[in-house]
Amino acid sequence: MLHDFSIHLDRNFNFLKSSKFIIAISGGIDSVVLAHLCHKLDLNFSLAHCNFNLRAEESDADEKFVKKLAEKLSAKSHTESFNTTEYATENGMSIQMAARELRYNWFYNICEDFNYDYILTAHHLDDSLETFLINFSRGTGLEGLKGIPRINEKVVRPLLPFSRNDIELFAKDYIIDWREDRSNSSTKYLRNKIRHDIVPEIKQVQSNLLQNFKTTLKNLNHSSDIVNHAINEFLKSTITFKDNSCIKYNVDNFINVNNSKAFLFEVFKSFGFTQWDDILDLLNAQTGKYVLSNTHRLLKDRNELILSKINVDNEEKEFV
Amino acid sequence: MLHDFSIHLDRNFNFLKSSKFIIAISGGIDSVVLAHLCHKLDLNFSLAHCNFNLRAEESDADEKFVKKLAEKLSAKSHTESFNTTEYATENGMSIQMAARELRYNWFYNICEDFNYDYILTAHHLDDSLETFLINFSRGTGLEGLKGIPRINEKVVRPLLPFSRNDIELFAKDYIIDWREDRSNSSTKYLRNKIRHDIVPEIKQVQSNLLQNFKTTLKNLNHSSDIVNHAINEFLKSTITFKDNSCIKYNVDNFINVNNSKAFLFEVFKSFGFTQWDDILDLLNAQTGKYVLSNTHRLLKDRNELILSKINVDNEEKEFV
Repeated sequence: MLHDFSIHLDRNFNFLKSSKFIIAISGGIDSVVLAHLCHKLDLNFSLAHCNFNLRAEESDADEKFVKKLAEKLSAKSHTESFNTTEYATENGMSIQMAARELRYNWFYNICEDFNYDYILTAHHLDDSLETFLINFSRGTGLEGLKGIPRINEKVVRPLLPFSRNDIELFAKDYIIDWREDRSNSSTKYLRNKIRHDIVPEIKQVQSNLLQNFKTTLKNLNHSSDIVNHAINEFLKSTITFKDNSCIKYNVDNFINVNNSKAFLFEVFKSFGFTQWDDILDLLNAQTGKYVLSNTHRLLKDRNELILSKINVDNEEKEFV
Repeated sequence: MLHDFSIHLDRNFNFLKSSKFIIAISGGIDSVVLAHLCHKLDLNFSLAHCNFNLRAEESDADEKFVKKLAEKLSAKSHTESFNTTEYATENGMSIQMAARELRYNWFYNICEDFNYDYILTAHHLDDSLETFLINFSRGTGLEGLKGIPRINEKVVRPLLPFSRNDIELFAKDYIIDWREDRSNSSTKYLRNKIRHDIVPEIKQVQSNLLQNFKTTLKNLNHSSDIVNHAINEFLKSTITFKDNSCIKYNVDNFINVNNSKAFLFEVFKSFGFTQWDDILDLLNAQTGKYVLSNTHRLLKDRNELILSKINVDNEEKEFV
């Protein structure tokens, strides 16, 4: 795996060789192997470990383990302790979401304070497969089936083409220690069910599942790029005016495509709308008709759709 | 279900009311329920049953069952007996493929001979879900995840939004008899494994799976429509010449999109090519370089790619 990892970096993450980065490390096998791989390739990294204090002594033992590992790899380590349960309660979010928010906020802060260029995480091919099946089970679209992104702002994931099995073999070959993760949040429950029951069941009838999944991911990412290209080109000819208060769109362009609803969805999905049938009806509605989201209004005005932010207090005055 | 089916026809298959069609009927619950539904809505249909002679007396009993059902529903029935095994051997194909080819050829022939407009099949939502998972396990792309098509030439599938459970409830409510299908081909094996083991396992953690899958299908079909729109628009500005012997494409257009390989794949996928990296290299290759499929040649010529059919015998003379 070391050889393949090295080639993968050369081809796709060459910038890491001249960068300084942190590795987000839980102490689990994936992130520990990533740290060892980066060490063997003489990369310039530190370890960053969050203690979420969700599993008492175990959390503390994880932290100690990471500090020792940093010494062994002659790397700097950053650790931070969070009161995750309190943060979740205060902000009305799940433990899972709270931990995520705390983690990434802290990582970005260390990057700022210590001049790190990137945050590496150890997500791998099996994680992408599980995410695909989780999203599929919940109902999704192309974006939810594309796999975990390779690069997202400062977050870089160099293990995505490698399987859990690759990682386990590497850990065995190099006699690497790690900490078992015994957390069992509800998202973890779904993921564990998929990992331990559903994926092995599919592998019984399709032993090549992971390689085939790589093909699927590549194809879906291609399709997604074409969709993005199409929407960009469409917007170039469809936006007739844009300033800080509103954007105007030519209505005929939406009518003349092969699937008006699909284009309406792609163009307006990031503005909080949910009533897509009503938005479709706007295309042929009379001037003055509109659809609201919590944050935006989409108004039919002759041959244009006009998107603007709404101020809820003024809404009634303007439109009744 | 009768009410929902009636509404579904009104909205999406209104043309069936003024048409004459056959229902492809195995004797299994799905096609038998489809026949009863069409009977209750007074549609003008006949039953068409293939006896593939793969299960001896059982196959004959299925045929008898269908003939009786036709009488009961006052419908005409067509039945045909095939020597499927022989046909498969003669044509070097799997039993599954042979049965498929025999079936559809015969259906189209009856349509011709007896002036039927359409062939109805009883594929439903669970079939689409299973097909999604089968294709996913084998490696696929957007096209393989879109579900079974509603209409494909003369073949119409009005049960796609309904689940197996809907169909079973209808059969129970109306005390409808059907024949159990005990065939067990290798494709059936994979499908049965998915149906009986994998899908129930996913439903354990996601009871809403089928409804969520409907959302996924709708979204993926939207994305697919946008891809088709994008490729059509792209071809309008990229094809510089077309006649019976060749098509010429502007090279710069392929270079200027966000993902050249994705566009090359979509444009040339139906011509038998497989070496997509080589085709990508053509964009920057010198004049005279080319890539071959079994049936076509793609040649770089200054700022154009030229696609032409090949005559294998002449190939060497022309290019060495």
